[in-house]
Amino acid sequence: MRLQWKMVTSWPTNFPGLGTGAAKLAERITQATGGRITVKVFGSGELVPPFEVFDAVSRGTAEIGHSAAYYWRGKAAAAPFFCAVPFGLNAQEMTAWLRFGGGLELWRELYAPFNLVPFPAGNTGVQLAGWFRKPIAGVADLRGLKMRIPGLGGDVMQALGAVPVNLPGAEIFTSLQSGAIDAAEWVGPYNDLAFGLHRVAKYAYYPGWQEPGPTLEAMFHKPAFDALPDDLKAIIEACCAAVNDEMLAEYTARNQQALDLLVREHGAQLRRLPEDVLVALKRAADEVLEALAGADPFARRVYDSMRAFRAQAQAWHSVSEEAFYQARR
Amino acid sequence: MRLQWKMVTSWPTNFPGLGTGAAKLAERITQATGGRITVKVFGSGELVPPFEVFDAVSRGTAEIGHSAAYYWRGKAAAAPFFCAVPFGLNAQEMTAWLRFGGGLELWRELYAPFNLVPFPAGNTGVQLAGWFRKPIAGVADLRGLKMRIPGLGGDVMQALGAVPVNLPGAEIFTSLQSGAIDAAEWVGPYNDLAFGLHRVAKYAYYPGWQEPGPTLEAMFHKPAFDALPDDLKAIIEACCAAVNDEMLAEYTARNQQALDLLVREHGAQLRRLPEDVLVALKRAADEVLEALAGADPFARRVYDSMRAFRAQAQAWHSVSEEAFYQARR
Repeated sequence: MRLQWKMVTSWPTNFPGLGTGAAKLAERITQATGGRITVKVFGSGELVPPFEVFDAVSRGTAEIGHSAAYYWRGKAAAAPFFCAVPFGLNAQEMTAWLRFGGGLELWRELYAPFNLVPFPAGNTGVQLAGWFRKPIAGVADLRGLKMRIPGLGGDVMQALGAVPVNLPGAEIFTSLQSGAIDAAEWVGPYNDLAFGLHRVAKYAYYPGWQEPGPTLEAMFHKPAFDALPDDLKAIIEACCAAVNDEMLAEYTARNQQALDLLVREHGAQLRRLPEDVLVALKRAADEVLEALAGADPFARRVYDSMRAFRAQAQAWHSVSEEAFYQARR
Repeated sequence: MRLQWKMVTSWPTNFPGLGTGAAKLAERITQATGGRITVKVFGSGELVPPFEVFDAVSRGTAEIGHSAAYYWRGKAAAAPFFCAVPFGLNAQEMTAWLRFGGGLELWRELYAPFNLVPFPAGNTGVQLAGWFRKPIAGVADLRGLKMRIPGLGGDVMQALGAVPVNLPGAEIFTSLQSGAIDAAEWVGPYNDLAFGLHRVAKYAYYPGWQEPGPTLEAMFHKPAFDALPDDLKAIIEACCAAVNDEMLAEYTARNQQALDLLVREHGAQLRRLPEDVLVALKRAADEVLEALAGADPFARRVYDSMRAFRAQAQAWHSVSEEAFYQARR
């Protein structure tokens, strides 16, 4: 068997982290299968536009897609839960919920009618809350604020009076520069530095409440995947998990280097969101998620599963990961 | 090519987390290679004793070993840095340092003279500080305390007047019960509950300063690994990375369930170590690590690399992962 497979992605070719992660997945599969599957990667727009990856893999135009599930809420209301939800799970918890908390089974069930088999395949870790042209002193400063923030994070900002805007990454810089928008969240120091966001919006706020542990997805055209012999299925499964491990490691290593540069050399003003803003965002997030679950029975199942897992994760991590960070200072 | 490979481990067969992780690695390799390599797992003592895994793989008695690098400080003083050091890196940071911070290259260099090729293959996440028969009110309570705590964590406790003891996991329960020891650290709620430590020592202290993100290792007999064709090498690399991802997920999911049981149903007293104890432990840890680096040139290189990475990781995680935990409460 010698297969030539196409991978379509929502990222520019070799875009740091996301695009290089997709490329690495293709390379891993090609190498580990000894070329029985050769995967050719297409950056966003090369074969299909970035937001048509789901449809393209669903109909078999490409066998693999590398993207983020929260882009597909128009297809399935529950999709964002498998990428990132405001005040949801961080990277370590997302992977745990997906693999050992029933999350992946729900994700597979959601995607099956679309002829798609999803795997977790990457994570950025906690992001920044975004770059702002003016400081945020309190909740009142969010009113009327035009901010590039997609998905559920945008819904939450809207609930507090902001005006969420969805823009492709490549348009963020000029929109901030021209004043068309007042603020933008993109990813984190590593990717934001590459776009030069600090040059047009001085205030970098944290933490990234809106995307605490975004899982990237590798989705496979189900008939193509199902037709594989067991050893190739096992290879693909291992390669996706390897990239899930590796991409988070890359972001962890690169974000801290980029943060150093941004603050020490580029004069970025790194600030914590005021406590009242975080509290208001959290309350609004609960309402947005509850409304989503109320409107869609599958979203209800996923939200309940995620929320129960989050409660336990929070209890354990408050005495392990979080308590260790505090003790190490 | 049909190879029959042996994997020796330092864990009882199917011991939760560690042993099941080793078994999963063997299964992944066997499945993904379509049986070109069939891996048979031997629990501790079945082929060689737990602390002879390093030697057994070094001389080729087995082709693979699954263990923890800090057991091998007698072979190479720098070895513990590749598993866990007190107040060192957590799981996310360990993987980042190994893959993108130069750590794995140093590890390979250290193990090469022993005919070993190491890969990260599992992590427990932040552990508990341990189980104590009496409460710890301050540094004075550490003096004379007989505690099962191996490795560098034991050295640090000794610097504060405690008496560290090294015991196999299976002997911890009876030693606590008989009063032969006053305290013991093992892993975390998932594994500690299985041993019933809460029945013989009521006070569970956190956080696990001594082992914040222990990396488990898969080490390969170098001549056997080097003789593999490229596709099998790529499969092994992916399978190890997959297990690295998966084991942490398992501990994350299971620790929180076990913690719930321990506190709600078994009456375990969960307490944070007093601040002055943590400060004293941190100071002692710096001295122990500095002494280790001063006595061994390779340990100096590794310590400097890890320490520089830790400083950056700490800066970034204080505004990302840690800040998110705080905001989510």
